[in-house]
This record gives sequence, C-alpha cells and structure tokens, in this order.
Amino acid sequence: MQTIQSDSYPIFFENSIQELVNFVERGNYSRLFILTDENTGEFCLPAIQTALAHLDKTDIIEVNAGEESKNLDFCMGIWKMLIDFGADRKALMINVGGGVITDMGGFVASTYKRGIDFVQVPTTLLAQVDASVGGKTGVDLDGVKNIIGTFTQPKAVFMDVEFLKTLPPRQILSGLAEMLKHGLIVDRAYWDDLKNSDLSLPSVELVHRSVEIKNEVVIEDPHEKGIRKALNLGHTIGHAIETYSLLNDDNPLTHGEAIAAGMVCEAYLSAQKIGLPNEELREISSVFDKLYPRYTLNEAMFPALLEIMQNDKKNENGNINCTLLTRIGQYSIDNVCTPDEICDSLRYYAAL
Amino acid sequence: MQTIQSDSYPIFFENSIQELVNFVERGNYSRLFILTDENTGEFCLPAIQTALAHLDKTDIIEVNAGEESKNLDFCMGIWKMLIDFGADRKALMINVGGGVITDMGGFVASTYKRGIDFVQVPTTLLAQVDASVGGKTGVDLDGVKNIIGTFTQPKAVFMDVEFLKTLPPRQILSGLAEMLKHGLIVDRAYWDDLKNSDLSLPSVELVHRSVEIKNEVVIEDPHEKGIRKALNLGHTIGHAIETYSLLNDDNPLTHGEAIAAGMVCEAYLSAQKIGLPNEELREISSVFDKLYPRYTLNEAMFPALLEIMQNDKKNENGNINCTLLTRIGQYSIDNVCTPDEICDSLRYYAAL
Repeated sequence: MQTIQSDSYPIFFENSIQELVNFVERGNYSRLFILTDENTGEFCLPAIQTALAHLDKTDIIEVNAGEESKNLDFCMGIWKMLIDFGADRKALMINVGGGVITDMGGFVASTYKRGIDFVQVPTTLLAQVDASVGGKTGVDLDGVKNIIGTFTQPKAVFMDVEFLKTLPPRQILSGLAEMLKHGLIVDRAYWDDLKNSDLSLPSVELVHRSVEIKNEVVIEDPHEKGIRKALNLGHTIGHAIETYSLLNDDNPLTHGEAIAAGMVCEAYLSAQKIGLPNEELREISSVFDKLYPRYTLNEAMFPALLEIMQNDKKNENGNINCTLLTRIGQYSIDNVCTPDEICDSLRYYAAL
Repeated sequence: MQTIQSDSYPIFFENSIQELVNFVERGNYSRLFILTDENTGEFCLPAIQTALAHLDKTDIIEVNAGEESKNLDFCMGIWKMLIDFGADRKALMINVGGGVITDMGGFVASTYKRGIDFVQVPTTLLAQVDASVGGKTGVDLDGVKNIIGTFTQPKAVFMDVEFLKTLPPRQILSGLAEMLKHGLIVDRAYWDDLKNSDLSLPSVELVHRSVEIKNEVVIEDPHEKGIRKALNLGHTIGHAIETYSLLNDDNPLTHGEAIAAGMVCEAYLSAQKIGLPNEELREISSVFDKLYPRYTLNEAMFPALLEIMQNDKKNENGNINCTLLTRIGQYSIDNVCTPDEICDSLRYYAAL
C-alpha cells in the first residue's frame, strides 16, 4: 500500500512500527515522549516500546481514556510533565491512540516551547481516516469541542489496520461514518464500494482511499477557507448531537454515531434546499439506519441543539452553515439553514 | 516616522489610534474584543474606546496587571469569555497593554477556534521595542516563563510614544535594556546614540531604530534557528535572574532590570571566552551599572539560577547556551558555557 504524501509529511500504511523506528533514528531527537491512554497502552504500546528500546531515551505519559480527558487540565498535566522531564525543543512527541490523544497531543506539542515536533500513531479507525490528516489539533473547553487548538502538521503519521483488530465494533462504526462521508462528498464509486463491503473490519485499501480523499481536500485548502468545508457534511448537526449527548447521556454517542445522525439530517436538508434526488436521500437514510442505532430525539431538545450549533466555530455571524449534497458524490458548501429548517430535519431523522 | 513592514504586517509609530480605526474599518470583523489590564485600561483605553464607539461592536476583557496574570488560568478565563460572547472566527482581538497582555492575548487569539486575527497596541516601552515584533506569543507555567505559546504574527501593531508618558521610570528602564541590547548586538553607533541621549523618555526616533533592528533580525530567522539568537544576549542569565526574583522577592525585578544584569554577566563571559576587549567590557558594565540598581546575588542562589538556565527553552541537551559579543555591535551565537563559567560571571557582577 502506497505511502501518501500530505502537505509536508508522509502517511505510512504498512510496517508502521518499523517505519516509526526508521523515522526516529533519522531524526536528531533529544528525547522521545509517548503520549497514550490506558486502553491503547495495553494493546499497542508494548510493541512500540520494544521497537524503540535500543534508543534508551523514551518516556511514557499516560492519560485517562475518553473525550472527558480532552481538556486544558490534562494539557497542563502533560506540559508540566514535559517540564519536569526537562524536554527541550529537540524533543519528539509520539501520540499513540485515538483522536483524543492525537488531537490533544498535537496541541500540547504545537504549543510547548512554541512548538516541538510530533508524530501521530492513530490506533482507532476514526483517528486513522480523520484525525491523522489535516493538521488540526485541539481540546474541548466548557463542553465546546475542539474550541482551543492550532493548525499544525505532524512530522509523519504511522497507521496500520493491525492496530484495529482489538477495537470494539462500536469504535469501528465510529470511523466508518467518516469513510462513508468521504464517499458522499466526492466519490460515488467509493460510497458504493463501502456499501458492498464487509465493514466489520475495513480493508487497508478502503482505509487508504479515505485518507487519500481527505488528503486531497485538505491540501487544496489547509485553513478551511473553502473546499475543505466539504468535510463538514453531517458535522453541523452531528457535532451538536454529539455535544448534547456528551453532556446528558450516561453512555454518550461516539463521534461517528453522532455524525451518522447528522448526515441523515443534512441529506434531508439537501433534498429540501438544493435538489438532492429523493431516491438518494432514501438510500443515504437507509444505509446509515441499518448500520447505526437511532438516537432518540425529541422537541424539547431542539433549543439546546440549536444553541450548540450557533456556537459552533464553523459558523459566523450567528448563522448556521451546512455543507450539503446536490448528488451523492457532489458537495455544496456554505448553505445557511434557518432554525426551522434544522428542526424539520431533526424531525425527519426521528421519524425514519 | 516611517511605518515598518514586518513579515506580513505593518508597525505604525504615529497617529496610532487613528490607524487602528482605519484598520478595523477595512477589516470585515464580526466583533472586536479589547484585552487589557486595569492599569492600561485607566490610561489608554478611553481614547481607543471613543475612537471605536461608532462601530458598536466592541467588548472589553480586563485582567489583573502583572506577570502573575500571565498564565493558563487567565487564558481559560479569556477563552470562556470569548465563548460566552459568541466570538466566531471573524472576531478580532485588540491587545492593549504591556508584554503580559500582548503575549497572552496573542496566545489566546492564536489558539481560539484554531486562530483568530489579533493586533497589538503595546503601551509600555518594553512591549513596543520587544514584544511587538517577532510573532512570539506565550504564557508562563510553573514559574517557567513563556513555556507555552505559539509563533503567530499579529495583523498589525500600533504604537505611540504618547502612550509612554504616564509610565513610571522603572517601566521605561525596563524597555531601555532591550534597546541597549539592540545596539550591543548589531549597531555600535546606536549604542553610542543611546548612551548620549536623555533616556527618561526615549524619542520616537530611538524607539523606531530599535524596532527596525529587531525586525531585521527576526525577518531573517522567524523560527529562531540561527541569527535570531542574537536577541538572546543577556537573556540566558537574565531570564534566570528574573525567574528567581519573581519566585523569591516581594518586589521582583522588571524584565529589563534582570536582563541588564544578565548582559553584564554575559559581557564578562564574552571577554573571558571570545575576546571582547576589556575596555568594552568596562564600558558595558559601567553603562548598565549607572542606569540600573544592582541586584544582590550570593553564592547560595547559584544552584537555583543554574537549574533555571538548564530548563530554559533556549537550551538543548542540558547545555547552557549563550549569545555573546566579540565587539560592541558584533554578536556570536551558540557559545556553550559551563556552570563554573556562569558562576564566575555572576561573581563578577556581584563584585562590580
């Protein structure tokens, strides 16, 4: 499987631990800091530690697993550990984990001493197809997702479908939603491929194609001024549902479950507002509804959801902006949707 | 006085409030957030508020004055206010104050929603000649100065010697140390000009020349890989003295007072190690000793000072790195100094 070149850095798909070792040996790093969480640590960390042991300059920083850890208090803890370990500007951070670890580790590295090098080792499907490309780093504050962060590219990304074998099915489904999105926005054939594949563990070819699509979009528009907004499909409404669930549910939705719901709502808006054919709306709704559990929405939740959307960093001047579809495989950015339209789309999803 | 072009942004020296209004009127900003502290607020803020009043989209965020405010807790407070005010990516931050405000405000803006525009209105001499050029943002953590931050350029800088008229003399002296440094590293004639000027309130021409020198150095080396290290003269030892004083003294040294001491120590190291003529060492020592109060150093403080230097982000692999002088007006970077040499230089300063 071919290495993808993104902006200034390579993304490896095979022999990734060996590629990581090669990368580190070539770099003139003073110390290596592996950021990970207790779950990832259990599965992938031993292999990486063994592979780097001969260099004798690695420290591990472990945080609690889960979105609740993705905040500035944990950043402060990590920054303080870097200070205590005497990390200088030639230190390298190796972020081994899901999106929480890669996003937060990227942010910590991009701001420690005004920026040290970091590489990503994404170990969830979501982090592989989404968080590993695009140079977005970030943490949550006051329940607002990724509100604090930077645009900073890693020096390399090392992924491997091997890492996914121990993931629970819900985690696979979470990443799959982003893959389906990549098909919906720019590649009808890829969407069809996905529909017809065994998705319990996506093949390296499917993962590779998703990364390729995201990379093409991001390279054209690194600072999210235009076409990159294509990637927001499902995210205006999906992010709000995710944030709401995180604040209110004991067992909150995963990112992918939330944006799957968001994509159904936004497909409805696409049909209402910009002519997505009704049979394609039905196809999209049916694919997501078969794969994902339905989240229970009721009218009483709508005001809170709208308020979250209005605070979304994707929006400006208080307008709610959606990326929609004219066809499967054809996106359209900057569609302002009224609160009434949004509520209708939520009702459509709830009544599927 | 000519506007200086730094990297991507202009630095204004005259009619600065009017230039700020022009800038804001040309920009398509959704809201304006003025970050300031209670001292600055009292003096400069009313004029700026009046000048921007017709736009009817300005909010004020005020923090406590002083280096103790330059930390992540204050950042969190500011980020939360931006969230509460509904600040979107088209918001502008206007940082009005000394280096604490411009450094921290720059950091907050560069990381809020992965970066919003900001401009600097430096109101202390130090912030005008130092913090306003170079794109360094940052805050302190665990007593380590500027350890968390980014390299991000403001969109413009608006300064005016008028802002300095209400400053206490100690604050003028603090900025003056950086101006003297600019002469020492690259411009003997400017050093002589400064020596022979009335320095109770430096002229706009002198301020302009300092900004010009710093700008030339920074533009050549935006990420501090080489020549920019010239600006570190006095800072390896000076920063340590400043940090020590901040942690231990009721009335701690200003930045300039500390680096004035650092420059004397490092001039001594220059004479010992790389041939700065003894008469120039005497000249430098005498200029600083006349202008600045002597900080009382004793041997018991040396271990703590050395430890701070070893944690300094300027240093790598545990070595202490100094920028030194071969002559007045000629710097030399990357001189590794041993702890013994550093201690000798501290003794020289203490025994002046």
